[in-house]
Amino acid sequence: MNNSAIGVFDSGMGGLTCVKELNKLMPNEDIIYFGDTARIPYGTRSKETILKYAEQDIALMKKHDVKMIIAACGTVSSMVGMNKNAAGDIPFTGVLLPTVQTACSKTKNGKIGVIGTAATIKSGSYGKAIRTIKPDISIIGVPCPLFVPLVENGFADRDNPVAKLVVEQYLEPIKKDGVDTLILGCTHYPILHDAIADYMGENVELISSGSEAAKYACAFLTGKDMLTERTVEGTISFYSSDSTDLFYENAHAFLGEQIHGTVKQVAMEELTALA
Amino acid sequence: MNNSAIGVFDSGMGGLTCVKELNKLMPNEDIIYFGDTARIPYGTRSKETILKYAEQDIALMKKHDVKMIIAACGTVSSMVGMNKNAAGDIPFTGVLLPTVQTACSKTKNGKIGVIGTAATIKSGSYGKAIRTIKPDISIIGVPCPLFVPLVENGFADRDNPVAKLVVEQYLEPIKKDGVDTLILGCTHYPILHDAIADYMGENVELISSGSEAAKYACAFLTGKDMLTERTVEGTISFYSSDSTDLFYENAHAFLGEQIHGTVKQVAMEELTALA
Repeated sequence: MNNSAIGVFDSGMGGLTCVKELNKLMPNEDIIYFGDTARIPYGTRSKETILKYAEQDIALMKKHDVKMIIAACGTVSSMVGMNKNAAGDIPFTGVLLPTVQTACSKTKNGKIGVIGTAATIKSGSYGKAIRTIKPDISIIGVPCPLFVPLVENGFADRDNPVAKLVVEQYLEPIKKDGVDTLILGCTHYPILHDAIADYMGENVELISSGSEAAKYACAFLTGKDMLTERTVEGTISFYSSDSTDLFYENAHAFLGEQIHGTVKQVAMEELTALA
Repeated sequence: MNNSAIGVFDSGMGGLTCVKELNKLMPNEDIIYFGDTARIPYGTRSKETILKYAEQDIALMKKHDVKMIIAACGTVSSMVGMNKNAAGDIPFTGVLLPTVQTACSKTKNGKIGVIGTAATIKSGSYGKAIRTIKPDISIIGVPCPLFVPLVENGFADRDNPVAKLVVEQYLEPIKKDGVDTLILGCTHYPILHDAIADYMGENVELISSGSEAAKYACAFLTGKDMLTERTVEGTISFYSSDSTDLFYENAHAFLGEQIHGTVKQVAMEELTALA
């Protein structure tokens, strides 16, 4: 048994889609969430900068003595790849491997689509990970750099004409390719789920990377006997690098409810001094 | 006479629209440009974070012993407001005052529209500045948070259906209001000039904040006898906080030509240690 919290981080709010699932699966666990809202987005930056930011995010999680760290960010996960030791001694997972495992088990026609940030798709990480599990899968990856700003600026509803048009433009080659499984390789994308599902049609299964990482973490902690022994509901502590007001305002879209606890700000000087 | 360089900074590439104009007006001047590409965008962040970033950007400019500093960023300019001493002893201008002066002199019907980032419009700075010059002007301000991502991700052509749709959605209330002058209060927006002009119609004059700041700097340096005495073409030195490769790739859209000189990277640790 282990009563320490689970640490989850993301470039911003997207990782809250993972927190939502964690909380559903393991309601008694404490969770510490950090959203690097003063430096979002990560997905348009260079690999070098993303890895530096990720190193600082991981160091922040370690400071809180968490029992497991989840990089609930598709971009960081792609840069770190399948390196399970990215957080040293502390069990670590990105969204990459859990998502890819699920996608490989779901596809029937052997055709998987992957959408993510520019950095994620450029890295080719999803493709590499899929091929280590099933070498004969056909993969099509398309960067969707406008999806994060759409989600952040309220253009995400199923009937929003801008969301519909951008979804259509980005996903056309994937739809034409005839995939039956589509990986939402960025934890912001579930907010666009309905618009994406409407365009792709009911025969294409969408895999949410944040949810898959949460399921993996649950299985891992259960298997290692590292769940909390508490029988009361856990607390979620939120940290952001930009204004906590902005965090409060926007979190509910990702979390599915308003934040109950407090949000604390992590000063940029503290963050950059960590690694 | 003063042979030091002019310092120009922005959250990213948008400020290059100011550099382009500076270089046209004063080809013999040296220019030092910094784009904070590892932390772009500024316009969705809190005032506190924007001012901290701006302080570091100004400190970086000072390190290069420039003779004048231009905040070629609508968001920073709005936060700093009309404070001419934001850079201490060194002559400083944002884009705010030069742009507002031009808009006030151009409008015939006394109706001015302002578009900018969320932080810029929330600050109300353009409105306040306009009213100090002409108290009876009618002003309508609309935040256009999706314009920067559109520009950065190649959705900016006059015929791009996404650009056209977003322009229409954001600018509809301004068009209905009957303005004859529209301030592009963010230095990224001139890249969307044609799409905006097509929607607003030929009777509305668009004012580019980057160009106006360049004209103001030229008049200021001329008036104070601070132009260079060199009679050969000046050099432009580029600095970015993220990968210089990404800077090279994207700069031409803003500068109107490929970069001739070198781009150097400013490490994040160096930047955050400055202020």
